[in-house]
Amino acid sequence: MREVAVIGVGMTKFGELWAQSLRDIFVEAALKAIDDAHVDRVDSMYVGSMTPGLFVGQEHIGALMADYLGTSSIPAVRVESACCSGGMAVRLGFFEIASGHSDIVLVGGVEKMSDGADVTYALATAADQEYEVYHGVTFPGLYAMIARAHMHEYGTTRKQLAMVSVKNHHNGSFNPNAQFPSEITVEQVINATMVADPLTVLDSSPVSDGAACVILASMDVAKKMQNPLIKILGTGAATDTLALHTREDIATLKAVKLSAKAAYDMAKVMPSDINLAEVHDCFSIAEICIIEELGFVDKGKGGPFTEQGRTALEGLIPVNPSGGLKSKGHPVGATGAAQAVEVVEQLRGAAGKRQVKNARIGMTQNMGGSGASSVVHIFALQK
Amino acid sequence: MREVAVIGVGMTKFGELWAQSLRDIFVEAALKAIDDAHVDRVDSMYVGSMTPGLFVGQEHIGALMADYLGTSSIPAVRVESACCSGGMAVRLGFFEIASGHSDIVLVGGVEKMSDGADVTYALATAADQEYEVYHGVTFPGLYAMIARAHMHEYGTTRKQLAMVSVKNHHNGSFNPNAQFPSEITVEQVINATMVADPLTVLDSSPVSDGAACVILASMDVAKKMQNPLIKILGTGAATDTLALHTREDIATLKAVKLSAKAAYDMAKVMPSDINLAEVHDCFSIAEICIIEELGFVDKGKGGPFTEQGRTALEGLIPVNPSGGLKSKGHPVGATGAAQAVEVVEQLRGAAGKRQVKNARIGMTQNMGGSGASSVVHIFALQK
Repeated sequence: MREVAVIGVGMTKFGELWAQSLRDIFVEAALKAIDDAHVDRVDSMYVGSMTPGLFVGQEHIGALMADYLGTSSIPAVRVESACCSGGMAVRLGFFEIASGHSDIVLVGGVEKMSDGADVTYALATAADQEYEVYHGVTFPGLYAMIARAHMHEYGTTRKQLAMVSVKNHHNGSFNPNAQFPSEITVEQVINATMVADPLTVLDSSPVSDGAACVILASMDVAKKMQNPLIKILGTGAATDTLALHTREDIATLKAVKLSAKAAYDMAKVMPSDINLAEVHDCFSIAEICIIEELGFVDKGKGGPFTEQGRTALEGLIPVNPSGGLKSKGHPVGATGAAQAVEVVEQLRGAAGKRQVKNARIGMTQNMGGSGASSVVHIFALQK
Repeated sequence: MREVAVIGVGMTKFGELWAQSLRDIFVEAALKAIDDAHVDRVDSMYVGSMTPGLFVGQEHIGALMADYLGTSSIPAVRVESACCSGGMAVRLGFFEIASGHSDIVLVGGVEKMSDGADVTYALATAADQEYEVYHGVTFPGLYAMIARAHMHEYGTTRKQLAMVSVKNHHNGSFNPNAQFPSEITVEQVINATMVADPLTVLDSSPVSDGAACVILASMDVAKKMQNPLIKILGTGAATDTLALHTREDIATLKAVKLSAKAAYDMAKVMPSDINLAEVHDCFSIAEICIIEELGFVDKGKGGPFTEQGRTALEGLIPVNPSGGLKSKGHPVGATGAAQAVEVVEQLRGAAGKRQVKNARIGMTQNMGGSGASSVVHIFALQK
């Protein structure tokens, strides 16, 4: 298998981008990544997008984006795994280069959620339509059930959940691309509008527009480039049952665990080798479960670990230095690619006020649905 | 790059499958393919589907299908390129095996179009929403414009268009999985209900439910299996502008030409080496353009070539021995995978009354939109 590196990254600001259409948003991120990589061509494209058909009435996103990027003729395809569509695009681009078929591949993601569609309905299509959605459950409800189970089994507290959001908003306050770059307090989180008990609106990631792109290249090509050399050491993906009620334990995200194990095994590194991680904090409880499944802390101890500041910017393992989905925003198809953008900027030492010190190895963990899909990548700065 | 082979195929009957849901349909095809391959595991899955969100309110199809297939935990992702989603799934599974990451990958496609959604609206999301769909054009209209341009430039006749449908219904009459396995006549095609002048309802592929799956494996694994060894010699994909009006010549399908060239180059074969081809006859005019772009006949001569019977089952280059999209049916996300199923059955000599004699090398050509995406594969029976 050929080695694969990241040679360029780019993203739009996340937020309510009223002045730009779906295609404009993606092209902005793609051009930034192409400029950053200093390449004059890409061999093919993978575009992650969850449900542009429901959000803005447009499918066939691969060809559309190649067309509007001015590269019409190259292979281009859309990838969908609900909210981990962007991370899956990175993975599939990795395979195309690893196989030897292509040398330079643009991978990315985009979503435009603020154009008037019924966002809660559109997002609910990532849950099991026949056994969950028809009975009225939506994602805040599903994650609230996960939170209640975690609190019951492990004693996780309301304050510990809130501290995920507080930390991520603090990090996001240093991120010029963040949708909500504002500090918040534990009291504000707990007293905010209830969405699904115990989760309030400040436990929940926002509705966002945005795009992010990454240029992947074979190691041979990457070595000739001027940017710091960042290799993808490992990729892992896994699935779980789509519906929550069929899982052995709803406080465990099995797909996250399996995808992380696959990535660690491939990369030949351990959790303690990771210097920073961008993880899928769609709701505060998700980050607590995820840091446990990734092996940063024992199962059930994610709450205290967060409360003790171990996942803070200066902590043992900084989690979501970008601000995460909560503060940076969550244009669902773009999120996985934006995580890769952040990790690359951190490994380059170019993350400004949110820079993690001595960052050499970084991880992204991107999730779909209530944890039915997860994809993990491990990136390392090469000397 | 590792060599990749097909070790199993399976598909459902195409038609209005009222008794089965989206997941049931896919699982039926997947289990048939797994049985045919005689494997007890797959390493990952790629599921082509165009717009299940709009058709049946369900996205996150990769994880869903892994779940209902009983393989929940393996990596699984959906692939979308409008009506060539299934062909793209084959291509991406090919890369994963070629890279050395996996040995056995299930690729396939599914669509359930008859559940009450506005099919014409849902399909139109494959066209350019801002420059085509908002102005009222739908796919029959777009292909009618291509047909008029081809008739004007090359003298293609109304009868020649009709003969595509007549041939494909003749072939489909031998296919137990075909939705419309009935012979039709030139007069019936021409006098059928007009959809978009000059195309009648019998120039047009139907609305269908169905699924098809293919099991890919590394050559090492495939050689140990009992089925005839069928290697994928080449894969090619390309794009064109999404909107018809921005193309240099609307009677030329550039993406088809480029994707075929890429596949021929990789396979090191020429058009004259192909013994049979399954191509994307979503409308009769599409097949005429495609056989030209694939190099089976000179540009502009597709009409007379069809009229002379050169693409018939006993002709120079049999095209759509399965009955094609027209007679077999066109559950959009499944079509590309179903083309591969047919080619494999032909190369195995297992196609019954529609068997092409001495079939050693077969091609699939699957298209999205009005030709903005195309993916081509070349398969060869190994001795």
